Amino acid sequence: MSKAQPVLIAGTWRDSKSVGSFEPDNPRTRQSTGETYPVSGLEEVEEAVEAAATASEQLQAHYPEGVARFLEVFADRIEARRDEIVEMAATETGYPTSPRLNDIELPRTTDQIRQAAAAARDRAWSMATIDSASGVRSMFAALEGGVAVFGPNNFPLAFNSIAGGDFAAAIAAGCPVIAKANSSHPGTTRLLAEEAFAALADARLPPATVQLIYRTEHDVGKRLVGHPRIGATGYTGSRHAGLTLKEAADLAGKPIYLELSSVNPVYILPGALRERSDAIAEEFQASCLMGTGQFCTNPGIVVMLKGADTDAFVQSVSGRFDDAVVGTLLAAGVESGMTDSVETLAGAGAKLITGGKAEAGEGFSYANTLLTVTGKQFLTNPETLQTEAFGNESLFVIASDLDEAIEIARHFEGNLTGCVYSDTEGSDDEAYERIEPLLRRKVGRLLNDKMPTGVAVVPSMNHGGPFPATGHPGFTAVGIPASLLRFTMLQSFDNVRPHRLPAPLQDANPLNIQRLVDGTWTDAVVG
Amino acid sequence: MSKAQPVLIAGTWRDSKSVGSFEPDNPRTRQSTGETYPVSGLEEVEEAVEAAATASEQLQAHYPEGVARFLEVFADRIEARRDEIVEMAATETGYPTSPRLNDIELPRTTDQIRQAAAAARDRAWSMATIDSASGVRSMFAALEGGVAVFGPNNFPLAFNSIAGGDFAAAIAAGCPVIAKANSSHPGTTRLLAEEAFAALADARLPPATVQLIYRTEHDVGKRLVGHPRIGATGYTGSRHAGLTLKEAADLAGKPIYLELSSVNPVYILPGALRERSDAIAEEFQASCLMGTGQFCTNPGIVVMLKGADTDAFVQSVSGRFDDAVVGTLLAAGVESGMTDSVETLAGAGAKLITGGKAEAGEGFSYANTLLTVTGKQFLTNPETLQTEAFGNESLFVIASDLDEAIEIARHFEGNLTGCVYSDTEGSDDEAYERIEPLLRRKVGRLLNDKMPTGVAVVPSMNHGGPFPATGHPGFTAVGIPASLLRFTMLQSFDNVRPHRLPAPLQDANPLNIQRLVDGTWTDAVVG
Repeated sequence: MSKAQPVLIAGTWRDSKSVGSFEPDNPRTRQSTGETYPVSGLEEVEEAVEAAATASEQLQAHYPEGVARFLEVFADRIEARRDEIVEMAATETGYPTSPRLNDIELPRTTDQIRQAAAAARDRAWSMATIDSASGVRSMFAALEGGVAVFGPNNFPLAFNSIAGGDFAAAIAAGCPVIAKANSSHPGTTRLLAEEAFAALADARLPPATVQLIYRTEHDVGKRLVGHPRIGATGYTGSRHAGLTLKEAADLAGKPIYLELSSVNPVYILPGALRERSDAIAEEFQASCLMGTGQFCTNPGIVVMLKGADTDAFVQSVSGRFDDAVVGTLLAAGVESGMTDSVETLAGAGAKLITGGKAEAGEGFSYANTLLTVTGKQFLTNPETLQTEAFGNESLFVIASDLDEAIEIARHFEGNLTGCVYSDTEGSDDEAYERIEPLLRRKVGRLLNDKMPTGVAVVPSMNHGGPFPATGHPGFTAVGIPASLLRFTMLQSFDNVRPHRLPAPLQDANPLNIQRLVDGTWTDAVVG
Repeated sequence: MSKAQPVLIAGTWRDSKSVGSFEPDNPRTRQSTGETYPVSGLEEVEEAVEAAATASEQLQAHYPEGVARFLEVFADRIEARRDEIVEMAATETGYPTSPRLNDIELPRTTDQIRQAAAAARDRAWSMATIDSASGVRSMFAALEGGVAVFGPNNFPLAFNSIAGGDFAAAIAAGCPVIAKANSSHPGTTRLLAEEAFAALADARLPPATVQLIYRTEHDVGKRLVGHPRIGATGYTGSRHAGLTLKEAADLAGKPIYLELSSVNPVYILPGALRERSDAIAEEFQASCLMGTGQFCTNPGIVVMLKGADTDAFVQSVSGRFDDAVVGTLLAAGVESGMTDSVETLAGAGAKLITGGKAEAGEGFSYANTLLTVTGKQFLTNPETLQTEAFGNESLFVIASDLDEAIEIARHFEGNLTGCVYSDTEGSDDEAYERIEPLLRRKVGRLLNDKMPTGVAVVPSMNHGGPFPATGHPGFTAVGIPASLLRFTMLQSFDNVRPHRLPAPLQDANPLNIQRLVDGTWTDAVVG
């Protein structure tokens, strides 16, 4: 076993006071990458939290200019080292270097970081509110303490715990980050952390603004998110681990933003199938198998009404699934998770249409898989039949009539997305109008005539949704500036002397932002 | 014992399937008011949650016009029955009919309800966001399910679980309410519920939009807030009961907004004491003894630097406390709570300056009380010395120097408010600049030269703060429209056909609201 890689704690790359170690795998070879990473113990985590709390105090003096500058330098540095980073990410995830990593995910990552830098500078998201008669003013600003970020396995760059969406949002809000690397791509995270640490020096920010550990035991992770001096946590990953952390954070009264599982129900109404069955089948296949189905917004449940058009659609998709290349999965755990989930679904009555077999492609893999249940079966066991199979799988729920399809919508758990395909002639309109009010409030993002994969990084995006898709239905993990608000607090200033007010609230409006002044949005000066 | 009053469940006033009963007291006489109220069991609560969930679906068709109309009619009806409501509130709370209940709290209550009605109609708070290139739009709208509201004992009208701030916010957002009356003023709540129920009929809203129970056993309360079909909870009250409910709601992934305890630290800097000691003493006494100290924002800790001016200030306040009338407390539990809290503080080393005795005035009461500790003592046991004594009490913390006063700020728990009094000549400025960055992030509202009691109902108000003052630092319980956002979810619409978009997001901007369109706030039409 190679020497364990160092952790980044309190401004220093150093050997971990580790309580164990692990080796990540190359998913295409099913073998270790040859690197060894430490498991951090309680002492190291305590030290990181204290260092982040101190950095949190210090960062106020560097906000926003130093913070924005850091993010910009960091984005430049990622691009300067892109070949090495992309190669490492490809080795650790099995994703293709091009286009996925080099041409899609890396540009998205640096674009997000630069958007975050711009958001830190302009502070339009502070929602500056001024009531002149009462002398009260308010805005959102960074909460106190560091932010722990647990990144997911499926976006080694764009959701990396260093460089990804939660990282960029926390830093742009003004919070230091303690990153817990995802265990399936610690090397990618280490390279990104090296660049972040160098960028901190360039921007003269406190060196403990970014810290990195790779793995902890469960109790230590719980201590991290519930530590009296932590500020908040951003977590993207499995439901089980997420709920364990949520419980610890909640007990301590610490905000935790989770992105957990989601089956992303898609309704395909009868008129739409009559009108454009082939086009929808093609869209569905592309969305469901993209990235070997390892997207948070993968369409995992499709609801259709019983009938010949539906039978033909199922046949068509099944053929496409059989013909499609079986992609590589991210890790041994994802492969075994597919086996377990498909077994769980089958145990609840789902019938296999195609697939259902592990090691069906290169490296970690599972055959492209479709299952089906009747609407009636679904309604007898809706919880189990919403088990997420994280990967290239989907469950077709065939309702006997529209009333049953509507009743199914009442039984969905919270999801990131929900879609409805309807025809363009109006024959599906009545069904739409009955389904939409139910589906709308079960999901963060409602789509028409479009598959849910593909998450635009725009202010109106909601990559969130009701529990258990996330921990709170009011916040999004994607979309700047909204994603920053997770790491802020509401601050009122009551009768505070004018020269002591922060820039967003000063009469002269030095940031030239839109503010809610006496009930009206305006960029005018006050008084 | 009189016959138990009815509950309002699923659209009907009816006898409770009760599992017990209780009689509220008249705090001035220390005797029962003569009324009997039921303790609701699990079956009744389950029925209420289901009825609210159904009403939640139905309310969408009445939103916003029917909801706004309901609130307006309700406000009118409260005014039409004001004498009876005020008299009942006076009997149950011991508060003076005038000015407190009739001239301050009742007008504030109806004003809040009318502000909430206006907010439902204009929907400016929906934060409509449109990104035209990506075809994504978003807004905040009511979450799914009813909202359970637990009102506090100290505002029988303005924070009543029916008619108060949480009620008005939840209804205005579009959520039905299940009100759990505060046990110390169930009669007031019942009268308000009668008017609310009548107003529902006038506005033709689903009759289960407002439901009322009076008390539950702990397990049933936990089931209520964690029920799979509840939407969210608003709770104002004691820390212990609040944290029990929080745990249950958190485990179920249900939003819960809590307003718990707060000691509202006030720094009085040396220059301010030199400059205007008498004026500050008078302000402090008025703020601390107002409503017998039973305000959430009561100044419960005052930090000053050791010295002759501070000694004189302490003497002056102590004299004022001795001279002031001892007010009546809201309930036997508040009186015993004062005894317990003062004992706890004394046990942690606080010395009694004056007061410290129960039954010192009319009815339930406790002598106007001041305690003191040194800064050094405070720092050795900061947690216990932040025990809230809910009532006419405050703790003076005398720091030996500025560094110690600053270190004290690092040890405050989350609070609703924090104040700094400084002189007008600049001699306190250095101290202010060192204290403010620490205190700012411990509190929801920062004040200068002003005591914290008095909470303006304006958009910039933050009646909130970091845990344990509340459960989340990003939300406020007072201030419309911000308080509505607690009962909403973020809804994105992706590629949704134009005619299916909700009014706030339609191209034509039919609500004529300010929207964030392609990054700029505007009330223009889109396209």
